[in-house]
Amino acid sequence: MKNTFGQSVAVTLFGESHGEEIGAVLDGLAPGLRIDEDFIRHQLSLRRPQGKISTARVEADEFRIVSGVFEGRTTGTPLCILIPNTNTRSKDYTKGLPRPGHADYTAQCKYHGFQDYRGGGHFSGRITAALVAAGAIAISALRQNGILIGTHISRLASICDRHFGDYEADLEMLGDLAFPVLNPAIEALMKKEIEQAASEGDSVGGVLETAVIGLPAGVGEPWFDTVESVLSHALFSIPAIKGVEFGDGFALADLRGSEANDGFRSIGGKIVTTTNHNGGINGGITNGMPVIFRCAVKPTPSIFQEQESVDLDTKENATLKLEGRHDPAIIHRARVVVDSITALALCDLLALRFGTDFPDA
Amino acid sequence: MKNTFGQSVAVTLFGESHGEEIGAVLDGLAPGLRIDEDFIRHQLSLRRPQGKISTARVEADEFRIVSGVFEGRTTGTPLCILIPNTNTRSKDYTKGLPRPGHADYTAQCKYHGFQDYRGGGHFSGRITAALVAAGAIAISALRQNGILIGTHISRLASICDRHFGDYEADLEMLGDLAFPVLNPAIEALMKKEIEQAASEGDSVGGVLETAVIGLPAGVGEPWFDTVESVLSHALFSIPAIKGVEFGDGFALADLRGSEANDGFRSIGGKIVTTTNHNGGINGGITNGMPVIFRCAVKPTPSIFQEQESVDLDTKENATLKLEGRHDPAIIHRARVVVDSITALALCDLLALRFGTDFPDA
Amino acid sequence: MKNTFGQSVAVTLFGESHGEEIGAVLDGLAPGLRIDEDFIRHQLSLRRPQGKISTARVEADEFRIVSGVFEGRTTGTPLCILIPNTNTRSKDYTKGLPRPGHADYTAQCKYHGFQDYRGGGHFSGRITAALVAAGAIAISALRQNGILIGTHISRLASICDRHFGDYEADLEMLGDLAFPVLNPAIEALMKKEIEQAASEGDSVGGVLETAVIGLPAGVGEPWFDTVESVLSHALFSIPAIKGVEFGDGFALADLRGSEANDGFRSIGGKIVTTTNHNGGINGGITNGMPVIFRCAVKPTPSIFQEQESVDLDTKENATLKLEGRHDPAIIHRARVVVDSITALALCDLLALRFGTDFPDA
Amino acid sequence: MKNTFGQSVAVTLFGESHGEEIGAVLDGLAPGLRIDEDFIRHQLSLRRPQGKISTARVEADEFRIVSGVFEGRTTGTPLCILIPNTNTRSKDYTKGLPRPGHADYTAQCKYHGFQDYRGGGHFSGRITAALVAAGAIAISALRQNGILIGTHISRLASICDRHFGDYEADLEMLGDLAFPVLNPAIEALMKKEIEQAASEGDSVGGVLETAVIGLPAGVGEPWFDTVESVLSHALFSIPAIKGVEFGDGFALADLRGSEANDGFRSIGGKIVTTTNHNGGINGGITNGMPVIFRCAVKPTPSIFQEQESVDLDTKENATLKLEGRHDPAIIHRARVVVDSITALALCDLLALRFGTDFPDA
Repeated sequence: MKNTFGQSVAVTLFGESHGEEIGAVLDGLAPGLRIDEDFIRHQLSLRRPQGKISTARVEADEFRIVSGVFEGRTTGTPLCILIPNTNTRSKDYTKGLPRPGHADYTAQCKYHGFQDYRGGGHFSGRITAALVAAGAIAISALRQNGILIGTHISRLASICDRHFGDYEADLEMLGDLAFPVLNPAIEALMKKEIEQAASEGDSVGGVLETAVIGLPAGVGEPWFDTVESVLSHALFSIPAIKGVEFGDGFALADLRGSEANDGFRSIGGKIVTTTNHNGGINGGITNGMPVIFRCAVKPTPSIFQEQESVDLDTKENATLKLEGRHDPAIIHRARVVVDSITALALCDLLALRFGTDFPDA
Repeated sequence: MKNTFGQSVAVTLFGESHGEEIGAVLDGLAPGLRIDEDFIRHQLSLRRPQGKISTARVEADEFRIVSGVFEGRTTGTPLCILIPNTNTRSKDYTKGLPRPGHADYTAQCKYHGFQDYRGGGHFSGRITAALVAAGAIAISALRQNGILIGTHISRLASICDRHFGDYEADLEMLGDLAFPVLNPAIEALMKKEIEQAASEGDSVGGVLETAVIGLPAGVGEPWFDTVESVLSHALFSIPAIKGVEFGDGFALADLRGSEANDGFRSIGGKIVTTTNHNGGINGGITNGMPVIFRCAVKPTPSIFQEQESVDLDTKENATLKLEGRHDPAIIHRARVVVDSITALALCDLLALRFGTDFPDA
Repeated sequence: MKNTFGQSVAVTLFGESHGEEIGAVLDGLAPGLRIDEDFIRHQLSLRRPQGKISTARVEADEFRIVSGVFEGRTTGTPLCILIPNTNTRSKDYTKGLPRPGHADYTAQCKYHGFQDYRGGGHFSGRITAALVAAGAIAISALRQNGILIGTHISRLASICDRHFGDYEADLEMLGDLAFPVLNPAIEALMKKEIEQAASEGDSVGGVLETAVIGLPAGVGEPWFDTVESVLSHALFSIPAIKGVEFGDGFALADLRGSEANDGFRSIGGKIVTTTNHNGGINGGITNGMPVIFRCAVKPTPSIFQEQESVDLDTKENATLKLEGRHDPAIIHRARVVVDSITALALCDLLALRFGTDFPDA
Repeated sequence: MKNTFGQSVAVTLFGESHGEEIGAVLDGLAPGLRIDEDFIRHQLSLRRPQGKISTARVEADEFRIVSGVFEGRTTGTPLCILIPNTNTRSKDYTKGLPRPGHADYTAQCKYHGFQDYRGGGHFSGRITAALVAAGAIAISALRQNGILIGTHISRLASICDRHFGDYEADLEMLGDLAFPVLNPAIEALMKKEIEQAASEGDSVGGVLETAVIGLPAGVGEPWFDTVESVLSHALFSIPAIKGVEFGDGFALADLRGSEANDGFRSIGGKIVTTTNHNGGINGGITNGMPVIFRCAVKPTPSIFQEQESVDLDTKENATLKLEGRHDPAIIHRARVVVDSITALALCDLLALRFGTDFPDA
């Protein structure tokens, strides 16, 4: 559905990069969940640009919750979060030449020229701020029910982070890191790559890896609303995500069945798998093991090198050279967007499975 | 939504591996589309097991269309296709020990033991026969509107097929191949790998690559119903798919923005991109270039080696050794399922965009 | 959504009056519900034509459940019920002249002439047999959870039945009546009216009144998915229903607030209302009192008098005189359709509220 | 779906009576539609209280459109309208005693006491201001495509307005009337009834009748998404609506088929019906004639007489006497809400049928 995601717990996004306000309506969360505005602020800070490796456009991200909260708790009715746009420089944008790798051309095809083209308009990564604010509430709600989510940069320009080890400790640690890597030694190397690309007017991408622990077994549907289907649907909404894989994902293509199957063991009355090549999901349904997935993040399309474009009015070939403020990498900022939309999708799956009083206040 | 996919053009699946009949309801296709039963039969034949590289369970797949077709054309009202199950051997299945890599355990968690466990029940790949029959009608409808879909095995056990070249010729060729590779020389090598695995009681996976040509620009939504979101939602419903990537996908993680961006050129008044790293989709919306994606197919979980399991009644550890008839590879059979569900998802996106008389009779 | 109703518990209808088979896919019911085929047969018998007051086309309504049931209980996966059409006389129908009061003309506008026009095709009341079969399972499931549904003819050609009194006794009684009235003395009078109309080649309509008891308080949504919205959406799908009212409905227009408000009392710790002018629903949400609604059923449009029509090919005015087998009244047969679709809608509302294990096995 | 209505054109509502802001997100309207802020203001003025027949709480209804509009036209992306609450007196409300006829008790059952109870919270008629603002845009869009909507008070406390005559003239006239009646002589009589009820601390209800002209034939679905289903779903969301009937509605119950059927005639090549007992809808699909329906509006539940209630904490019986500012009638104010939600529902049906560029810019 357009700009609305979720069946029982649903989020609706609105806003443009250079419009007056962006926001989200978060509907269907259980009543009575405590709203932690500091945590929302913290999550928004993780999305904000950071120093040399990010754009110079920094927004205050002052948010207002104008509905759905009463005496500090969710009411169960729709919660609207608004974030004003303050630091916009629309003169950096012109309509005529679509930027390669961006949605300028496809927006023109879809909206016939009526789209707000400034800064990517409704397609802008800016809109993810609203998603992060809404997601923060979902993350809190899941945490109160023992479900933890965390994402790290598993690869950036061929530099690889270590794998998840002690999930609980790793996820706790990631929550506080502005540059989310499990191996602290890798941070400087990755940042150097980003700065190198920036110095050449270029940009880098990477791979994000996410773990979710604490999910009950038996969530998801065999056909169409598999957990993979619902999560990938959500994840591919995030600008720049071009691949999603669960468990060993594409690496499974080179394994034998005897290597890929996860055998079962009973440990203290609890049934677990001895390995987790399937990423906690069998037949589209959670099996109680950690849910693991990775997202491919393409390099930021905004670069400062000369690029080929076409004048949409005259249909003549042209050359484009961007000015303004842009990120040489967005992967570290995209991380919290992945966590947010994952939390929203999981709240929906859980409420569909267990009813609208889930997650529990 | 459970077992139903699509908003304007929707497919609903039902049936179990060892039940009486499986089937699909296909709703929302434009009225007046000619039904080609021979093409449906052809598509079903592509899904059927083949010789030594497949299971010995071969179904006739005699289908009946019991509604929605009048005088050889779609009426615009729901079309129900039924396929009886004839060749079932339920005694090969027992309920107590969940098979690793299958949905037996998660089905138990979700359905509390009431599921039909024989042959995987509703989770069985058998159900995809109904999807293929419904998809055949969607593929025909798209073809009548100049939209072609085709999938090949781009990798199997580290053996790689060539890339797409002349899309139209390649897609035409693939439609007739029971073992879909673009480079004919590669077929024997891949089959040898499958037979080798089979001889060891094991199985293999691989990667499928799909191309869609002829799609108009401007289809899809910026948030949540991006083309990537909708297609991945559909694709991850197919059993054994554990990864989906668009354009260069995960390879984009190691590219610079200057390498990943697709510049625009005007050729004869038509705007095209000079490269297609983004797989025909920008900002979630088609740009008129070929839509390209790849799916990771895990090795078939049914293997004949001894595996670890747990007795669900006693919660005691146990050993499982499968008997019966199973595929050492399903990737060549999964190909037509990918084409089918892609066609269904695209018909839905096109009908949402252009109205319920699309695709045109 | 086209031909599919429900979000968590959903029913999908297919078939045409003179097609091969009609049927329904019922998805999302809790696993483990016992299937009572005799009760399904009983419900279908209530929909079947009866003696002089009905059409001479009588179908055996032999149904087959081909999926979703294992060892006599629901599996939790989609249940497909098929009913073959056996007693069809297509020669009674011609395409050219749309019948007044029927969907012939609107089907032509929507489907451009590709619709199956024989016997009303997919618009036919015949399709409700599949709805009744699916609804029988929902009715059983609700009954096992203490929720009872029943409908009587509250008015027919100005003759009025008595009001509900002892709900439980009345609902039990109605379940066995082929001609559902609470006051036995009224049956002969109403039937005489129907026979009188039939003898004049004419038909009659009436009002059906439904009561649902045992629903918990707190089901429904304040906006858009109010209980009234969801039920009316379902009810207005039934051919011939042209009005739906809850509680006192249109009679509320002439009451004062002091007469229409239902005061609260506490009786043995349970909160009840002393009157029920609002039909058990406040603010779109159940309050625990009986849910009461009435449906206006228009007179059967198939009559044997001469009527005005237009030749759709030539656009010339014409005269139409129906032949064949038609009902002078369908209200007594529509009753079980109302019960069925009400049960399906309530199962959906309850599963959305309390999760997919509701109604409980 | 909770708080979101529509599939292709969708509206999402948020806000509480005494919250900071209320609002609506309107998504899926065609790009390029001109936004007429004066018309939105005009529509909001029709919803605002008027003199002696309304509450003394008058809101300025200053709205802000913060997204989805660029250079005075819709962009095709979601449009968010915000309306601040300014004139609130929360001290008039207490939580303990549910008001008869209101949603206080059912909200408690659904939200477990976490709901914002002040002024009815999210259930308040106040929220309809956002619906009216969004609906004004839909009404404008339909008007640009030749589709007109209008509603009058057809009955209030046994006083009846005249029927529609010249639809186009009547609908034009109604658009400017604060008290919408077709017969000007009736206005004073109806207002006198309202004032009389008010003087007794009581309230009145009535019946609203709506006409829609200019709709093309062939819109709607045969099962589940009939035009009646979709409109009634929308209309029953409006607080106080307890009945909806199409065409002759409940009066059809006493007609014969020969009286109720609408014969067809060809007039200048256009097929019309000679009567319109079916309200422009056959088989759930528009036939090109005016769509006619009526809504029963119950008397405002807020009255100043002593009423029975129960203390929700102690479960003891109690007496309630409201203070504050309330409407003795809301029917004249509800009129524009009916028009608004009708327009939104029709935009959705039309976009589903004809694609997302409808209504045309």
